[in-house]
Amino acid sequence: MPSITIEEGRHRVVIESVSPEVDGGRFAAKRCVGDSVMVEADAFCDGHDRIACRLRWRRENETTWHDAAMTALANDRWRGHFIVTEPGAHRYTVLAWVDHFASWRNELPRRIDADDILSALHHGAELVRAAADRADDGDRTRLHDYAASLESSADAEAGRHIGLDPTLATLMFRHPDLSLATTYERELPLWVDRPRARCGAWYEMFPRSCVAAKSEHGNFASCIERLPYVVAMGFDVLYLPPIHPIGVTRRKEPNNTVPAEKSAVATRQAAAVGPGSPWAIGAAEGGHTAVHPQLGSLDDFRQLMTKASELGIELALDFAIQCSPDHPWVTAHPEWFRHRPDGSIQYAENPPKKYQDIYPIDFETTDWRALWTELKSVVDFWINEGIAIFRVDNPHTKAFPFWEWLIGEVHRDHPEVIFLAEAFTRPRVMQRLAKLGFSQSYTYFSWRNTRHELTEYFTELTRGDVREYLRPNLWPNTPDILTEYLQFGGRAGFVIRLVLAATLGASYGIYGPAFELQESAPRDPGGEEYLDSEKYQVRHWDIDRADSLKDVIARVNRIRRDNSALQQDWNLEFYPVDNEQIICYGKFTDDLADMVVVVVNLDPHHAQSGWVSLPVERFGLEDERPYQMHDELSGARYLWHGARNFVSLDPGISPAHIFRMRRRVRTEHDFDYFM
Amino acid sequence: MPSITIEEGRHRVVIESVSPEVDGGRFAAKRCVGDSVMVEADAFCDGHDRIACRLRWRRENETTWHDAAMTALANDRWRGHFIVTEPGAHRYTVLAWVDHFASWRNELPRRIDADDILSALHHGAELVRAAADRADDGDRTRLHDYAASLESSADAEAGRHIGLDPTLATLMFRHPDLSLATTYERELPLWVDRPRARCGAWYEMFPRSCVAAKSEHGNFASCIERLPYVVAMGFDVLYLPPIHPIGVTRRKEPNNTVPAEKSAVATRQAAAVGPGSPWAIGAAEGGHTAVHPQLGSLDDFRQLMTKASELGIELALDFAIQCSPDHPWVTAHPEWFRHRPDGSIQYAENPPKKYQDIYPIDFETTDWRALWTELKSVVDFWINEGIAIFRVDNPHTKAFPFWEWLIGEVHRDHPEVIFLAEAFTRPRVMQRLAKLGFSQSYTYFSWRNTRHELTEYFTELTRGDVREYLRPNLWPNTPDILTEYLQFGGRAGFVIRLVLAATLGASYGIYGPAFELQESAPRDPGGEEYLDSEKYQVRHWDIDRADSLKDVIARVNRIRRDNSALQQDWNLEFYPVDNEQIICYGKFTDDLADMVVVVVNLDPHHAQSGWVSLPVERFGLEDERPYQMHDELSGARYLWHGARNFVSLDPGISPAHIFRMRRRVRTEHDFDYFM
Repeated sequence: MPSITIEEGRHRVVIESVSPEVDGGRFAAKRCVGDSVMVEADAFCDGHDRIACRLRWRRENETTWHDAAMTALANDRWRGHFIVTEPGAHRYTVLAWVDHFASWRNELPRRIDADDILSALHHGAELVRAAADRADDGDRTRLHDYAASLESSADAEAGRHIGLDPTLATLMFRHPDLSLATTYERELPLWVDRPRARCGAWYEMFPRSCVAAKSEHGNFASCIERLPYVVAMGFDVLYLPPIHPIGVTRRKEPNNTVPAEKSAVATRQAAAVGPGSPWAIGAAEGGHTAVHPQLGSLDDFRQLMTKASELGIELALDFAIQCSPDHPWVTAHPEWFRHRPDGSIQYAENPPKKYQDIYPIDFETTDWRALWTELKSVVDFWINEGIAIFRVDNPHTKAFPFWEWLIGEVHRDHPEVIFLAEAFTRPRVMQRLAKLGFSQSYTYFSWRNTRHELTEYFTELTRGDVREYLRPNLWPNTPDILTEYLQFGGRAGFVIRLVLAATLGASYGIYGPAFELQESAPRDPGGEEYLDSEKYQVRHWDIDRADSLKDVIARVNRIRRDNSALQQDWNLEFYPVDNEQIICYGKFTDDLADMVVVVVNLDPHHAQSGWVSLPVERFGLEDERPYQMHDELSGARYLWHGARNFVSLDPGISPAHIFRMRRRVRTEHDFDYFM
Repeated sequence: MPSITIEEGRHRVVIESVSPEVDGGRFAAKRCVGDSVMVEADAFCDGHDRIACRLRWRRENETTWHDAAMTALANDRWRGHFIVTEPGAHRYTVLAWVDHFASWRNELPRRIDADDILSALHHGAELVRAAADRADDGDRTRLHDYAASLESSADAEAGRHIGLDPTLATLMFRHPDLSLATTYERELPLWVDRPRARCGAWYEMFPRSCVAAKSEHGNFASCIERLPYVVAMGFDVLYLPPIHPIGVTRRKEPNNTVPAEKSAVATRQAAAVGPGSPWAIGAAEGGHTAVHPQLGSLDDFRQLMTKASELGIELALDFAIQCSPDHPWVTAHPEWFRHRPDGSIQYAENPPKKYQDIYPIDFETTDWRALWTELKSVVDFWINEGIAIFRVDNPHTKAFPFWEWLIGEVHRDHPEVIFLAEAFTRPRVMQRLAKLGFSQSYTYFSWRNTRHELTEYFTELTRGDVREYLRPNLWPNTPDILTEYLQFGGRAGFVIRLVLAATLGASYGIYGPAFELQESAPRDPGGEEYLDSEKYQVRHWDIDRADSLKDVIARVNRIRRDNSALQQDWNLEFYPVDNEQIICYGKFTDDLADMVVVVVNLDPHHAQSGWVSLPVERFGLEDERPYQMHDELSGARYLWHGARNFVSLDPGISPAHIFRMRRRVRTEHDFDYFM
C-alpha cells in the first residue's frame, strides 16, 4: 500500500463556486474605487456540524489579509463583502472551518436527559477552555470563567443557560480554532479602477476641424477655444483621434480615395490632396510620440491638456498600432513588418480591399520583444505627459498576449490608466480583450435598435458573467459608424439614440460635432461611412446652428450627473410596456435614494403610446398613494399611481422621458414637500 | 523598463471555455467505455487569419497524445470527439494555431489584380515549401512540386487554380506549422468507467430474510436458492446490506427500539432480542473484513458470488464506516472515536435522536493516516474477493478528503470498481461527493412525484453541468425510505414508480421483496420507516404471492435490455401533455435506430387522458404518414399520426405505456414490414 502523500487529511470544510471568478481565476474581476465587492461561495462540511466562513482580501502588495464576515444564505451559499478604496490589483479568497462550539451550541437546546446535558456541558467547557488559550488577556479571563461555570454546573438547566449565553457565543466567534480550516484553493485576482473607468460622458472631436473659417486647419490652440463648448455640454472626457504626424506616401484623399483611382465622389471634392487620415501615423517629423506639426507643438498640446484639466475635462488619446510608409519604424525596424517575396512591405489588406497608406505590424516578428518594448514606451511617453485614458484602435488585430502584458505592465505603475478597446468584432474576441485588461469596450449598442434587441443585449451585459470584466461604453456614432438609424431617423432619431446611450450605459460617447449637428449623409447608399468624412478631410462645423442638439445633450449630461443611479450599469432593469415601440427601464441606487425610470419611443417618425408596468412594491411605494414622475428632460411632472400608467411620446416634441421617481406626494396628511 | 519575462509572445491563438471542464479542471468529467467524448472549445486569433484546432487525448499513463480533428461551429466554437475504449484515467486538451496557408487560400479567390495574384502565388509557394520541409518523403516531394508550380506560374488564373487545389489543401493540413501553436492551459482529467457505472438494474435484498419458513435465519446458501428469482426479474446487480458480524452491545430490537425503552410497537413483536441491525458492524467474530457467522463462512460467500456470476448478476457490497461498540477497532484504535470528558466513547447522535448501537468514526483524529489506511484495506480485501461494486453508506458524514483519496487510490489499480454514494443530503454535498469520484449517486427521485417536479429535476440531472460528474441511480424505495406515494398509491403506485425509475434513469434499483410485494405500512404515521423493518428483524417474504409485481418488473427490465435508448441518461427529453397528471418523455439513440416514448399516468387512483405532443419532425417521421407506437409493457400496438395524439391510462389496468416508436408503417406503397 502506498503511503499517504496528503499533508493534512482533516480539512473537513469544502469551499467551491466562489464568485466572482473569471475563468477559474485566470483573469481579474473588475471593480471601481468605492465599490462594495460582494463575494459568494459554497461552503459546507460533512455531517451535521456547523461551519463558519470568512472573506479574506488584500491589496496585491500587502502581505496580510483583511477579514470580513460571511453570512449563510440558502443552500450552503455564503456571502460577504468588502469595500475597495484604492485603485490597483487586489486578491481575495475564502476561509472556512468547522465551528465546533456553534455545533455544540446548536445541539444543546435539543438535548432532553439531564445526564446528557451535564455531559454536554463538560464537553462545552473543554471547547471554551481551548478558545481561552487562543485568546488575549481580557477575553482569556472571561472565557476561563465561562468554562469553569459550565463545568461546575450541577443543575442542567442553569448550565444550559450559561452555554447558550450570547456573550459567550460572541467571545467564542472571536477566537475560533483555525488549525483545520480550509482556504479556498485560489487567491482570486480583482482589479480596481478609478470611477471614471465605469462612468463618463465622452466626446470625440477632430482637432483639425476646430475652426470656423473654411480652408483653415485647426490646431491645439483652436481646440482650446472649442473647450468651453464641449464643457457646456457636460462631457467628462474629450477624446482626440491620433495627433501624430500623418504619412504622405499614398496618403488618402477625401472620401477614402487614392490618387490613382479617384471615384466620382472624390472628383467632386475641391482639395486635390487632403490632409490624410490621422490613423496613417508617422512621417518625417516622427511617429507615435511626435505631434503633427499642423496641430502645433508638444507644448501646445500640453497647454490644451492644462486648460482642459482646469475646465474639468480629461483628455483621451488614440493608441493606434500601425504605421504610414513614412513612419520612422519602417526604416529603423523593417523586421516588424510583413514582407512580400519581392522584399517590399505588405500594406494592410482584406482582399479585395486595400489600405495602401497603412502598414500593419507583424506580431509574429522574431523581434517581438523589442517591438513590445517600443510600443510600451509610446504609452509611457504619453502617460508621462499626463494622459491617463487611451482609446485603443482595433486591438483585435494585434496579438492578445501583447495586450495582457502591456496593460499589466502599465497598470503596475499607473493603476489610474484607462484603456478603451475599440474592437467591433466577434463576441468572444471582444470578451477576451476585456479579460486581458481593457477597462472598457465599445459594444454592439450602435446596431441595437428594437426593444427586443436592446433588452436582450443589455440584459446580457448587465446580468451575465461578462459584467465581471467587460464594461460597456456606448456610442451612437463614431467617425466610422453612421448607422442606418441615424441616416433615416431625423432629429428625433439622434435624440433617441442619445438618451438610450446616456441612460442605458454609465459610460457613453458621441462623435461630434457630427452628432449634435445631426450629420446623416452616408458616402455610399447602404454603407455606414460618412460622406466627406473627417477621417480624410477637414470639416468646418457651424456649431452655433439653431437646430443643434447641444442643449439637449447638456440636459442629458446634467441628468446623468445629478442621478447617481445613472452612474452604474448593473442596476439596469427593464419593465413591460404593451406597445413594442416603447422601451421602459429603470435604474435605482441600492438605498432607493435615487430612482430613475426612462421611457423612450423607439419610433422616430410616429407618436406612440402605451401602458407601462412598474414593479412598484419593490421601490417602497406605498400601496394606494400616488407618486411623482418628474421628467428631467422636459421638466414636466406627472402623478402616477399603482403599477400600470399611461405614456404617450410624440417624437416631434420629445421622444423620451427621463423620470426621476419621487416616492412621496404631498397630501393633506403630509405637509412636507417631496422627499 | 522591466525586461519581458514571457517566454514566447507570439501565441496568437486563444483557447478558452473548454467543455467538459469540472470546476476549472479540478475534477474529472466522467464517461464510460465505448463513449464518444465530445469536446468543445472557444478558439480564435487576432485579426482575420484562419485557425485550425485539434483535440488531443491520452490515457493518463501514456506519454504521447492521440489527435482528433476539431471542426468549427458558430461563434468561434470548435468541436471534436474521441472514443474511449478502456476504463481508467484519461487526459485531454486542445491545440490550435494560426493556419497561414488556410488564410492565404481563403483570400486568394477574392484578389482581383493579376499582379496581386501573382505576388500572392509567390507568397503561397513560400508557405508550401516550408510545409514540404516539415513533411516526410512522399508528401515532401508533392509539396515541393506544388511550390514550384505556384512560383513558376506566369498566368494568374492558372496559378490561382493550383493554389486552390483541394489536394494541396489536404497536404498542407497534414503538415501544419505548430511552432507558434497554443495549447490550452490545462490538461483536463477524464475518468472512464465500465458501462455498468452508468446503466444497471439493481436489486437490494437482506440475505437473512432469504428463507421460506418462519423462525429461520437466512444465509448465503439460501441466497443462492433465491438467485434464480432475482435473475428472472432481469436485474444486473444484487446489492446486499452489510454481511459482517453484528454487535451485541445495545443491539437494537425490532422497529428500532432499545431494550430499555420498548415502545408499544416493540412489545407487539414476538422476539425478545432481534438479530440487530446489519449496520451495527463488528463483534467478537470480527469487523469489516469478517462475515456474520449466521450468514455462513467466507467460503459460503464466495460460492454465492460464483453462482451469481454464473447467472449473470453482479454482487454489490455495502461499505458502511461505523462500528458497533463490539467492533475490534474500538479496543485496537480507541483514538479513532470521539470521547466524552469522562473517557467513554460517544455513540452517534443527532439530539434528541440517539444511535446507541453505533460509534461513528472521528475523522478529525490525529491518527487519520492509520485510519485511512485501514479503511482502504477493507475495500481492498473485498476487491480481492472479487467485489467490484460498493454501495457506500452515508458518505456525507465522513470527511471529503478521505473519499477523494480512497477512490483515487482504489481506481488507480482497479478502474473497474464502482462506488454508489448513498448521500440523501443537500445538493452541494451530493455533488461534491460525485466530483470526488463516486461513480453513481442516489437522488431525490424518491420524493419527486408530480410532473413539474420530475421534469425540473431530471432536466437538471440530464442537461445541467452536473451530468458531467454525477450519475443518478433511482430508487423508488430503500430499507430506509417507504415514501408516502408508495404508502398510499396502491399497486398502481408501485408500478408507476417502477416505470419512472427504470425509464427515467439508466441506473435504478428497488429494495425487495418489499417492493414487488408492495409492502406499504409505515412504522409511524407520517414517517418513512417500514413497519417491522428488515433493518432490525428477519422477514419472511412470500415471493410467490399472486399479486407480486415480479412479472411486471421482469417485463420492464426486459424492455430496458432490448432498448439501448433506455441505457443512457442524457438523451431524455420531455414532451407536452395537456393533462398535468400525465407525464410523457422520450429517449432516442443518436442514429434514431431505437426510439422509446414513455407515457405515465402519475395519478394512481384515477384514469387520466389527454393529448400528447411529440416533435415528430425531429424523429425523421415523414409528414403525412402514420407511425406505430408499440407498447412493450402491454404488447398493444397503436397507429399514431402527426404531432398530437390521444392517450388514456387507467391505473386499474396499466398506468403506463412504454412505447417503442416504429417509423414506417406498411401501406400499399410499401410492402415492407415495420423497420
